[in-house]
Amino acid sequence: MEKFEIHILGCGSALPTTKHFASSQVVNIREKLFMIDCGEGAQLQLRKSKLKFSRLNHIFISHLHGDHCFGLMGLISTFSMLGRTADLHIHAPKELEKLLLPQLHFFCKGMGYKVIFHTIDTQQQTCIYEDRSVIVYSIPLQHRIPCIGFLFTEKPTPNHIRRDMIDFYQIPICELNRIKNGADYQLPDGTYIPNDRLTIPSDPPRKYAYCSDTVYNRKIIEQIRDVDLLFHEATFAESELARAKETLHTTASQAGRIAREAQVKQLLIGHFSARYDEESTLLKEAKSVFPNTILAKENLCVRL
Amino acid sequence: MEKFEIHILGCGSALPTTKHFASSQVVNIREKLFMIDCGEGAQLQLRKSKLKFSRLNHIFISHLHGDHCFGLMGLISTFSMLGRTADLHIHAPKELEKLLLPQLHFFCKGMGYKVIFHTIDTQQQTCIYEDRSVIVYSIPLQHRIPCIGFLFTEKPTPNHIRRDMIDFYQIPICELNRIKNGADYQLPDGTYIPNDRLTIPSDPPRKYAYCSDTVYNRKIIEQIRDVDLLFHEATFAESELARAKETLHTTASQAGRIAREAQVKQLLIGHFSARYDEESTLLKEAKSVFPNTILAKENLCVRL
Repeated sequence: MEKFEIHILGCGSALPTTKHFASSQVVNIREKLFMIDCGEGAQLQLRKSKLKFSRLNHIFISHLHGDHCFGLMGLISTFSMLGRTADLHIHAPKELEKLLLPQLHFFCKGMGYKVIFHTIDTQQQTCIYEDRSVIVYSIPLQHRIPCIGFLFTEKPTPNHIRRDMIDFYQIPICELNRIKNGADYQLPDGTYIPNDRLTIPSDPPRKYAYCSDTVYNRKIIEQIRDVDLLFHEATFAESELARAKETLHTTASQAGRIAREAQVKQLLIGHFSARYDEESTLLKEAKSVFPNTILAKENLCVRL
Repeated sequence: MEKFEIHILGCGSALPTTKHFASSQVVNIREKLFMIDCGEGAQLQLRKSKLKFSRLNHIFISHLHGDHCFGLMGLISTFSMLGRTADLHIHAPKELEKLLLPQLHFFCKGMGYKVIFHTIDTQQQTCIYEDRSVIVYSIPLQHRIPCIGFLFTEKPTPNHIRRDMIDFYQIPICELNRIKNGADYQLPDGTYIPNDRLTIPSDPPRKYAYCSDTVYNRKIIEQIRDVDLLFHEATFAESELARAKETLHTTASQAGRIAREAQVKQLLIGHFSARYDEESTLLKEAKSVFPNTILAKENLCVRL
């Protein structure tokens, strides 16, 4: 199966701890790297991950709180020192460009590549990126400031040819692409062979959803239904429910409820408050609602 | 002896490595903390150091390359979240204020404390900070952009009273402060007792010099003469001498030469290029010129 991996670079929340870096992840889809959020230290963690800096061309920023974007200048500046020439695309709420441009001009004079800003409409579900193999949609979230999640959806891949049937019917090679893409085949005697006798269906497209930061919000459920992996913030334990509401964050068991209702295959929780020395309570609370839950941690790689 | 400690938070140079954080140190003088440079991740390292965030009121920035200041916004923002109320003073080349202010306004709305910027003249030796126990001077350096080092100088402390002599001459307590500060004493019979019979000299004031980033520059020698500890950048090994000149950095043996000529007590080298997996060559080269050299590393604490 083609590569589809999530690398956790940081999964802490706003206050620094000795255990967690601020929010940042890399989604690796067939060796194209997509960064989601870029908290302070993201470039250090990226270096540790052994992922190739040059394969990263798109960065998606969920919202403009420092723990989700203070690592950008360091990363951009490092790319420049490494002699990057390829454009770097940053998809983010609109204020980011105005904040970063003066810094880019000052710190990255004579930079050999362009940073291209793309404003994300934080109010609507929109397609914010598309290539041959993947589409990324925004997921409007509800936080103290405009905030969006991201849904990474693989495009369907062609069916697999059944070599034995191709040989049996003596079908010429020039026909194979059409058959892969679903065409039936007509034999010289006029007989139609239906496509499903000639192919095996490809793997179903995989989906990854990232939802952070957000208050418990059932509106996202339809959009993330059936995803293979849901990353959902779980800043607080149930004992801090009031604090979660007040700060527009989610508790671990609320994250479990979202996962259960959306019937996702697996739940990955993160964005842990600095008040927790270790997150076993958060894991237990999420699992009591949605058993197939795992804890994010730095340098974790989840394969879809 | 009163506390005078240097904590290394990061001692790498511009490119991130799996081993080093970017430049940042904390000087702890009698539980007052002074930060020198604030590269990305400085707040994470500060958290690890167990030094108290609330004791840090002054930050000194040597120059405006990202690896020396990209950690500022994260630190300022964390201070705000922790409910800080005390002013934070940032001493830096003049452009920093203009770069940081828009970010402060955006990311730290309603912040409960003030950030006060002090422009350092990078061309001259000046006193940039003074309190009851310490004076900080700037050390003009030579780098690709305006850059200054810092000389932390303890003020002399009063002599120690010789309790036995005070008792012997039956000197009243109200006289002790004058005697500590150097006064002689006249007995009721008119005899003068010279101060050096009544006191033991206090420890000589200690000095710490920080010189990074800079090309090999003998002009600094007079200013750092006899310091107890010299931190000097040693970005490159001797094999990269040409590169050191070109980028206005120093080799390890050049750092050793500066230490030897300035007759410092100890040399601490850092700001290591990312090309070195480990710094034993750098240490060897510096030691061959100045034997009392040690390597900086993250979380190292040097007591003066």
